[in-house]
Amino acid sequence: MKNSPIGVFDSGIGGLSVLSELVKLLPNEEYIYLGDTARVPWGNKSISTIKEYSRECTEFLMDKDVKMIVVACNTASSLGIDSVQHAAGKIPVVEMILPAAEAAYKSSVNGKIGVIGTKATVRSNAYQNAIAKYNTFDNLKVFQQACPLFVPIVEEAMIKHPAAKLIAEDYLSVFKDSNIDTLLLACTHYPFMSELIAEILPNIRLIDTGNAASRQVFNILKENDWLHDQIKDKLSIELYCTDTPSDFLSTARTYLSFELPQAKKADIC
Amino acid sequence: MKNSPIGVFDSGIGGLSVLSELVKLLPNEEYIYLGDTARVPWGNKSISTIKEYSRECTEFLMDKDVKMIVVACNTASSLGIDSVQHAAGKIPVVEMILPAAEAAYKSSVNGKIGVIGTKATVRSNAYQNAIAKYNTFDNLKVFQQACPLFVPIVEEAMIKHPAAKLIAEDYLSVFKDSNIDTLLLACTHYPFMSELIAEILPNIRLIDTGNAASRQVFNILKENDWLHDQIKDKLSIELYCTDTPSDFLSTARTYLSFELPQAKKADIC
Repeated sequence: MKNSPIGVFDSGIGGLSVLSELVKLLPNEEYIYLGDTARVPWGNKSISTIKEYSRECTEFLMDKDVKMIVVACNTASSLGIDSVQHAAGKIPVVEMILPAAEAAYKSSVNGKIGVIGTKATVRSNAYQNAIAKYNTFDNLKVFQQACPLFVPIVEEAMIKHPAAKLIAEDYLSVFKDSNIDTLLLACTHYPFMSELIAEILPNIRLIDTGNAASRQVFNILKENDWLHDQIKDKLSIELYCTDTPSDFLSTARTYLSFELPQAKKADIC
Repeated sequence: MKNSPIGVFDSGIGGLSVLSELVKLLPNEEYIYLGDTARVPWGNKSISTIKEYSRECTEFLMDKDVKMIVVACNTASSLGIDSVQHAAGKIPVVEMILPAAEAAYKSSVNGKIGVIGTKATVRSNAYQNAIAKYNTFDNLKVFQQACPLFVPIVEEAMIKHPAAKLIAEDYLSVFKDSNIDTLLLACTHYPFMSELIAEILPNIRLIDTGNAASRQVFNILKENDWLHDQIKDKLSIELYCTDTPSDFLSTARTYLSFELPQAKKADIC
């Protein structure tokens, strides 16, 4: 297993922020990334559709003999995880929710935690429920807010536009009086906006789901003695998309600190 | 044919602005509307994917014995029209581009016309090419601008948000010195923003693709003597979605002046 690749999938390109955290922590691993760009976004789709798409992505990665599946998509982590686990069999699955919920719990001193995500993620209450399990605070309280415009703002590279600030101020105003000390960015696009979010909500610790998940990936690989045993001079990433690869990656490239390879077409839908 | 329904499809709910124009002009017709909500949006997908989705939507409507197909989607009209026509056989197809290009040409006095749409529509140059065919102005000039944030702004019911104005002013600033007298709204979502657009670009005539297409639908039905021959006391609309019908329609309802029925599931993907 040691030198098998890690399979990572997302509905589109947001999961590249998770890949970015993975390669920082585990630069010697091999990665296969699949973006379901023919059907992106998933956040506005029904639960049964999200389950079906999640299963198809997992099966594609399983055919590549991966040693682990990383569900780099909050919507799939909230709503499609059982179909991923079923398709993955005995291969470990790391999703976005539990590691980030634990990181948020550990970060919070006063037990007041904010969660921002897509409508589907917020509506699922997946993060709220996961955080609530750590009920050691008498006053544990989770405040949730959907920020649906953040994804198109990131995808259109408008994070520095004055309108982005207005929209962010509007969405985040619900946290002004909540006294939260920790904000969980429950969408893989949001780390690209963390500078703006920190400007509006200073002195609040931001939890990046990709960062938290990467630590779990590291721990599982280490426990199983599955860490790749060779040092790599350059990152090993294979990139697949369900739609014909087009210039959609150019925006992603502006956000990443490493080189993305050319994408190949994955025929799963 | 007279009393057969008219089939209308779109990638999602934007085409309801076209349906809205159709029922204004032809209230006695029966309509079957299909929104491909399981795979919305199409504007960021490849041409081959758009052709495939367009064919599947057309085949669904053909199975319902429609007398006409209305492609209430600018992306499909720009990039998927040949696969619609192939699947429709002898049934007439009305798309968004030619009727609106003609309306824009007829509206313009100085031959300077603006076109706004999704990235895919603008990149296809479909409207620019269609307008250019009416080359009776010595100085005919088409100015194009993609406005990718407009669709999520409409879908999030944020058209009155200050950020919407900032974004619209930014996108539309390219027209300030162009001296256009006509602006073609080449996306079915944009008519819902026409008040804001008119505020930023006063004294410019806005061309609504749904309105222009509806006139062509009327003319074709009349020429063929296919106009529905019974007066209806209430609108006859059947609504299908490819995803499980959910609350995505609630925003659409806020924009429409007529009642939408409950949506049924269309199993085409």
